[in-house]
Amino acid sequence: MKFRVSAKVGFEVFSPSTVLLNVQPFPTGNQIIEEEFFSASPMVPVKEFFSTAGEKRFSILEVPEPGFITFSYAATVQNAMRIIPAEGLNDVPIAHMPVSVLPYLNPSRYCQSDRLYKLAAHKFGHIDHGFERVIAIRDWIYDNVEYRSGYTSAQTSAFDTITEQVGVCRDFAHLGIALCRALTIPARYFTGYAYQLQPPDFHACFEAYLGGHWVLFDASKLVPLNGLIKIATGTDATETAFASSFGNLRFQTLEVSATLLEGDFRAVDASSTTQGYSFS
Amino acid sequence: MKFRVSAKVGFEVFSPSTVLLNVQPFPTGNQIIEEEFFSASPMVPVKEFFSTAGEKRFSILEVPEPGFITFSYAATVQNAMRIIPAEGLNDVPIAHMPVSVLPYLNPSRYCQSDRLYKLAAHKFGHIDHGFERVIAIRDWIYDNVEYRSGYTSAQTSAFDTITEQVGVCRDFAHLGIALCRALTIPARYFTGYAYQLQPPDFHACFEAYLGGHWVLFDASKLVPLNGLIKIATGTDATETAFASSFGNLRFQTLEVSATLLEGDFRAVDASSTTQGYSFS
Amino acid sequence: MKFRVSAKVGFEVFSPSTVLLNVQPFPTGNQIIEEEFFSASPMVPVKEFFSTAGEKRFSILEVPEPGFITFSYAATVQNAMRIIPAEGLNDVPIAHMPVSVLPYLNPSRYCQSDRLYKLAAHKFGHIDHGFERVIAIRDWIYDNVEYRSGYTSAQTSAFDTITEQVGVCRDFAHLGIALCRALTIPARYFTGYAYQLQPPDFHACFEAYLGGHWVLFDASKLVPLNGLIKIATGTDATETAFASSFGNLRFQTLEVSATLLEGDFRAVDASSTTQGYSFS
Amino acid sequence: MKFRVSAKVGFEVFSPSTVLLNVQPFPTGNQIIEEEFFSASPMVPVKEFFSTAGEKRFSILEVPEPGFITFSYAATVQNAMRIIPAEGLNDVPIAHMPVSVLPYLNPSRYCQSDRLYKLAAHKFGHIDHGFERVIAIRDWIYDNVEYRSGYTSAQTSAFDTITEQVGVCRDFAHLGIALCRALTIPARYFTGYAYQLQPPDFHACFEAYLGGHWVLFDASKLVPLNGLIKIATGTDATETAFASSFGNLRFQTLEVSATLLEGDFRAVDASSTTQGYSFS
Repeated sequence: MKFRVSAKVGFEVFSPSTVLLNVQPFPTGNQIIEEEFFSASPMVPVKEFFSTAGEKRFSILEVPEPGFITFSYAATVQNAMRIIPAEGLNDVPIAHMPVSVLPYLNPSRYCQSDRLYKLAAHKFGHIDHGFERVIAIRDWIYDNVEYRSGYTSAQTSAFDTITEQVGVCRDFAHLGIALCRALTIPARYFTGYAYQLQPPDFHACFEAYLGGHWVLFDASKLVPLNGLIKIATGTDATETAFASSFGNLRFQTLEVSATLLEGDFRAVDASSTTQGYSFS
Repeated sequence: MKFRVSAKVGFEVFSPSTVLLNVQPFPTGNQIIEEEFFSASPMVPVKEFFSTAGEKRFSILEVPEPGFITFSYAATVQNAMRIIPAEGLNDVPIAHMPVSVLPYLNPSRYCQSDRLYKLAAHKFGHIDHGFERVIAIRDWIYDNVEYRSGYTSAQTSAFDTITEQVGVCRDFAHLGIALCRALTIPARYFTGYAYQLQPPDFHACFEAYLGGHWVLFDASKLVPLNGLIKIATGTDATETAFASSFGNLRFQTLEVSATLLEGDFRAVDASSTTQGYSFS
Repeated sequence: MKFRVSAKVGFEVFSPSTVLLNVQPFPTGNQIIEEEFFSASPMVPVKEFFSTAGEKRFSILEVPEPGFITFSYAATVQNAMRIIPAEGLNDVPIAHMPVSVLPYLNPSRYCQSDRLYKLAAHKFGHIDHGFERVIAIRDWIYDNVEYRSGYTSAQTSAFDTITEQVGVCRDFAHLGIALCRALTIPARYFTGYAYQLQPPDFHACFEAYLGGHWVLFDASKLVPLNGLIKIATGTDATETAFASSFGNLRFQTLEVSATLLEGDFRAVDASSTTQGYSFS
Repeated sequence: MKFRVSAKVGFEVFSPSTVLLNVQPFPTGNQIIEEEFFSASPMVPVKEFFSTAGEKRFSILEVPEPGFITFSYAATVQNAMRIIPAEGLNDVPIAHMPVSVLPYLNPSRYCQSDRLYKLAAHKFGHIDHGFERVIAIRDWIYDNVEYRSGYTSAQTSAFDTITEQVGVCRDFAHLGIALCRALTIPARYFTGYAYQLQPPDFHACFEAYLGGHWVLFDASKLVPLNGLIKIATGTDATETAFASSFGNLRFQTLEVSATLLEGDFRAVDASSTTQGYSFS
């Protein structure tokens, strides 16, 4: 399928500042960026990077003058996630994991897996098969955590959400990650554009490392998985913010869109228990 | 100077388990590993890696049978940290930082810099020069945080220590890192062998990115900086544990030593305010 | 002086519910309630109480039917806080404190004084005289904590505010209380109507027990102390909420007012360092 | 039955200090203190009080000189807890609760019931009868929280224990209290001597207000309920510490004992689901 995605980010700048933008889809074996456009108004110097932490592209923009500035990005993305039957998605023994996967077993700012060992073992430890264990995590979150805006903040972490049981996609993802890591399943944060998400916004999910693949799970079940366009993965929300700013400036506006350009969209089930979806 | 370092780590193993050991010094431009010995008793399969997260080497050991197992490591290390005058150690603008340095601006499990912005700005924001700002951080921690064992735990974080003002080298390092990051200075956790540390143990410090160098600071001022032999750097203690174990096993014993083999040891001052020391 | 105070609280009720209202001024030696009016629309059974925890009056209202309900309260209050010169406001030795004062040395939900001992001793421990120590606490909070709405939540505590340094009157009061208790000065939460507060609302301050008196301090310095009409005191915000509801209902509206009826209002200085103000 | 209880508490004192001791059994309708002995060595001035917060007796001791000091207490206590059939132990509507019971609905330092609403409702909200709901809470804690010394600290709270699932009697009690309050059941902390507790120590449980009685529950199920001799009840551990000290002194030793003097001890089942036990 082919999607058109776009993002427009505006700041009010009070003194020379620097902005890191992370809104560009990440090219993978099954996600091809066909064309993309980026502009800043007024124009400022831009440097583009691939990150060594997580998988993301980002742009560093230096804003030399006070005033309002808007960054606009748009791309056409061809994507076809890989479908993998559940049987193939079992746990990978530690000693067989690639070195690059091991950091995703560690606790992180918002995913304190080190405090969830017993709880995770009690709730999910009896499930033998890796994929089924993560499915059970996804479904427990979906069944018990209320999706509600405005209650959680930028400081809410998995340790809060496991008890307070309310949050947004970011909180759902952090909790999924923390529970996986507590069970020795590497897990990471995923951000992307999301076709059919209402209201339009970036979306957050999580990926678990099973059977040698990074498999995508959405504990909020808000959108079809095959309508997601990957922007970035990282340890948690700290590594994948769509914008980080340094200096004296204030975030003003964000507009995000994802539309279908070509192809017949047959939604895959965010609740599937028989197959996994992967960008890698 | 030339040091002899050694570590012996023992576990009681109850079922097949995996251990990640991170006790080997890391080779840098000014730290040369001349020879090293590693053995496990009983013998088990070992794989050795360089990590992509942080800078470290580690070994993955698969322990197939229950029983007691001991890992022994020893090395001869030649090292001569680089000395850099304070003038050259100012802040690096974001847009000029290498991409690999940027992740060290993010908050992490034990270093919640996102919650320390105002406090850090109030206490240290008025100091113009980067090196002087980190010196002020180091000295504030040294002056206000009591070095005491047994009070903090594996869950203690910089957010706790800034208020509770008690801890060990790990807590001192986490607080230094969090305060630096809150002021937009990249900072990372450092672990190493430490000549003259009493009682003998691994030691933790922090590095701040100034003037294009990772400069070492020890807020505990427990040992001379030039008696440190670098094992690893990472976002915080989560990435640099000397041993991580998976399976059913129990940590039993740890013996660490660092002795001077050759050279005349002239201790550099852990309180220096005129020059920085760096492994890179 | 004579004030007219009023409060109007509205709920949408979905099933039979119970509401505890705590909006009535508390009579003290220097605060006389001359007349008061209370009504519920529609009418519901009301029971009125004096509380044994803290000092407050409250009403229990049983709402038997779904629908909208509004509680209206108004009173005329004559008040003249006692003015006590600083010299008389020194620490009271533990063994001479009334038993009813001792609980206000304990940590509470939002005032974790047990985690602030070292910090409080470092910052304020060198000040000899009790009143001066609390003045220093009040002024440190005023100077370092930014008054800003919408950042903190019902879960923000003194342990958060001491580091995050932002909040509203409730957070300022909790921090003042926690710091006093950490220095063995009994302290409690104060809520009241506040003449000249913009926008009109209830206000929160704290009281410290000095020289045998409960002396009022406002670390936010938002209003003149002698324009305050006391509603309640308690361990912290948990004991003094203006409304607590049980059942299936939703808080809708709150209107608060405090106007001067008689007398010439000469504002006393919320920053006074020479005299204390007390309701007892 | 008749018990002999004793406690011996020692401190090393470095400068004039004050100690609050709370080791004396509390007289209730079914707990009679027949005789008691108290001594301090060396002798110091002692004042004895009944507290207005919670139900406890305590002694304030002023230690004028540096040195070692030991407080010894012993008593003979006749007690016979009231047994109440489960049917009579249903929830009391808010509007029918005595005013003195209402504060035990509030969150407190170690029992953050305000953060447990959803979790408590999910796990226990479907159980209709009050006593059965608290039994379910008690049994969930017993089944899921590991009783282990040395893991938790004086700062561990119910919000930690619900997730970390490890602790001692204090932590078990705090969690029971927090879950009850989250379900609008008043609950309070109970401390006492405990016959048959090994090793001998004070014990902590919790009481829930059901059917007009304060009913005792022990989620640790460590001892028979009818071997408990009540010392104090309060909002949580902050109000019921066996010793609080002010000044420059260090806690040294504690010896506690509880022996049966007369009567045939027929242990009641700490797991009973058909009847409640109460001191009131």
